[in-house]
Amino acid sequence: MDSMALHDEIDSFFDSAPPLKDAAKITDNLKKFIESNFPVSGEGKGRRVVCVTSGGTTVPLEQRCVRYIDNFSSGNRGAASTEYFIKAGYAVIFLYRRGTCQPYCRSLPDDPLLECFEFADELDVQVRKPYSEAVKGAIRNHHAAVSSGLLLKLPFTTIFEYLQMLRIIAISMRSLGPQAMFYLAAAVSDFYVPWKSMAEHKIQSASGPLDMRLMQVPKMLSVLRMEWTPMAFCISFKLETDSKILLEKASIALKKYKMHSVVANELLTRKEEVTVVTTDQNILVQRDKTRVDSDVEDPLIGLLVDKHSTYIKESST
Amino acid sequence: MDSMALHDEIDSFFDSAPPLKDAAKITDNLKKFIESNFPVSGEGKGRRVVCVTSGGTTVPLEQRCVRYIDNFSSGNRGAASTEYFIKAGYAVIFLYRRGTCQPYCRSLPDDPLLECFEFADELDVQVRKPYSEAVKGAIRNHHAAVSSGLLLKLPFTTIFEYLQMLRIIAISMRSLGPQAMFYLAAAVSDFYVPWKSMAEHKIQSASGPLDMRLMQVPKMLSVLRMEWTPMAFCISFKLETDSKILLEKASIALKKYKMHSVVANELLTRKEEVTVVTTDQNILVQRDKTRVDSDVEDPLIGLLVDKHSTYIKESST
Repeated sequence: MDSMALHDEIDSFFDSAPPLKDAAKITDNLKKFIESNFPVSGEGKGRRVVCVTSGGTTVPLEQRCVRYIDNFSSGNRGAASTEYFIKAGYAVIFLYRRGTCQPYCRSLPDDPLLECFEFADELDVQVRKPYSEAVKGAIRNHHAAVSSGLLLKLPFTTIFEYLQMLRIIAISMRSLGPQAMFYLAAAVSDFYVPWKSMAEHKIQSASGPLDMRLMQVPKMLSVLRMEWTPMAFCISFKLETDSKILLEKASIALKKYKMHSVVANELLTRKEEVTVVTTDQNILVQRDKTRVDSDVEDPLIGLLVDKHSTYIKESST
Repeated sequence: MDSMALHDEIDSFFDSAPPLKDAAKITDNLKKFIESNFPVSGEGKGRRVVCVTSGGTTVPLEQRCVRYIDNFSSGNRGAASTEYFIKAGYAVIFLYRRGTCQPYCRSLPDDPLLECFEFADELDVQVRKPYSEAVKGAIRNHHAAVSSGLLLKLPFTTIFEYLQMLRIIAISMRSLGPQAMFYLAAAVSDFYVPWKSMAEHKIQSASGPLDMRLMQVPKMLSVLRMEWTPMAFCISFKLETDSKILLEKASIALKKYKMHSVVANELLTRKEEVTVVTTDQNILVQRDKTRVDSDVEDPLIGLLVDKHSTYIKESST
């Protein structure tokens, strides 16, 4: 597709999207967060800032939304990676799907409030013994990250919200130059129903099978990379269930969207290993199997932070 | 559709569904729960038992599921109704979508663990003041219901899990006769992709729009009502976004599936009012607007409990 056709598609996607609620407030929060980590008066010295996207986007099938298509993602990858980025000294803008896994909460049960607490006496609740460390760690680390200004959390649900927010974030991060990084781990819908052609009311089920035609979501990665924030270091993800086509598809995405790296992962083994695909090599990254509680995100973020350092150095020469 | 064609459709749905995990354990837990509330030795005297279904079912579009269609439902109706049924003396089997609203937790924020707690000192966490009552109430009431054997929680995700579990529950409840009630508030998918015709791998997005054909989920309500548990008192729900067709559709469902009542609700006003549609009258039920924190489920469950009492009396004469 030529660039003009892509821009037309993108314009038509944004024009037809329902307007983002709280856009002004989000922009304002981003501005404060970025300034506090990367002060203008700091003469270009400041923290690196990474935008981590996490969880799946939804595609509404009706305007008054009863049914939607969802992309499966627990948000575990994004939450874990956020923890390791903060540990490495980054400030993190965590753009996450409502209800998915939160940083520092990965070892907790599905319903932590009801499963982890009990009454100590008539008046006070306490953490039940087996969960004590995990719950206290979650509350302590999460509050520390937020209160020290290293973690800004922004929730989305639909593909329309996600792409509008990503654009606002990218434009806000432009001033960071090569210190900015995008780590695009969210599972973004490939297909959507344009808002204006969508059924206003619930689709009726009375008569026979349902035939649907979904349009491709325009690929925003190249526009993010080349226009919204051209100096940022950009990592995208490629998830497949079929290992035979995985690396080839990752490599095509790398070139097509001019990413700096593409993290290739297969559905069944994604917690064990990933392959970082770059123009000159493919690097297999595995979790430390000698430890039960190790994460593949630990060595992965280590590797990407190193690559980012090299990129910053090369950008300044 | 004639009854034989429906049975063929239902058989083919269950035959093609992936087998339910933990089916034996679920059956066993149900048996214990029902026996403890309705002892065989109690000479037919026991608690009434209601199965409340809650939240939306998903329809996988791929066998190794990356994409799925979801039905929107916060689970608020089912959670609230469960609280009022327990208050009215019922034992509740709460068949709910993983991650949706839980009984006694409706007034809490999205992420209660991270938003409601803080460290009191180096070692102990405490509930933050503004959330104190709500959090303590949630933990206390929830534990009380579970530990006194009045609440059994069973989670589902897909339409395949939901319908298999509903069948197991219905058959387990058959022995309760007219003391059994079904309160089917879950948002169940109308369309699905048969498991065997489903793509094994992730659908590729390379070329053009996506065309999908979805089959109708066979309507199990009449089979639940007439075969699985023929003596139970059955309430189903009808949600529409278009008020003009709502009552008519509820009335059709009432006759078609031989429900005892259908609760008709409109998407925008569903927290304010519902209409209970029966063969001889439509009853508008509204929440008490003189109180900020009143629920429409309070008078709704009151009305249905009365109707259930009448039904039990009539069944025994």
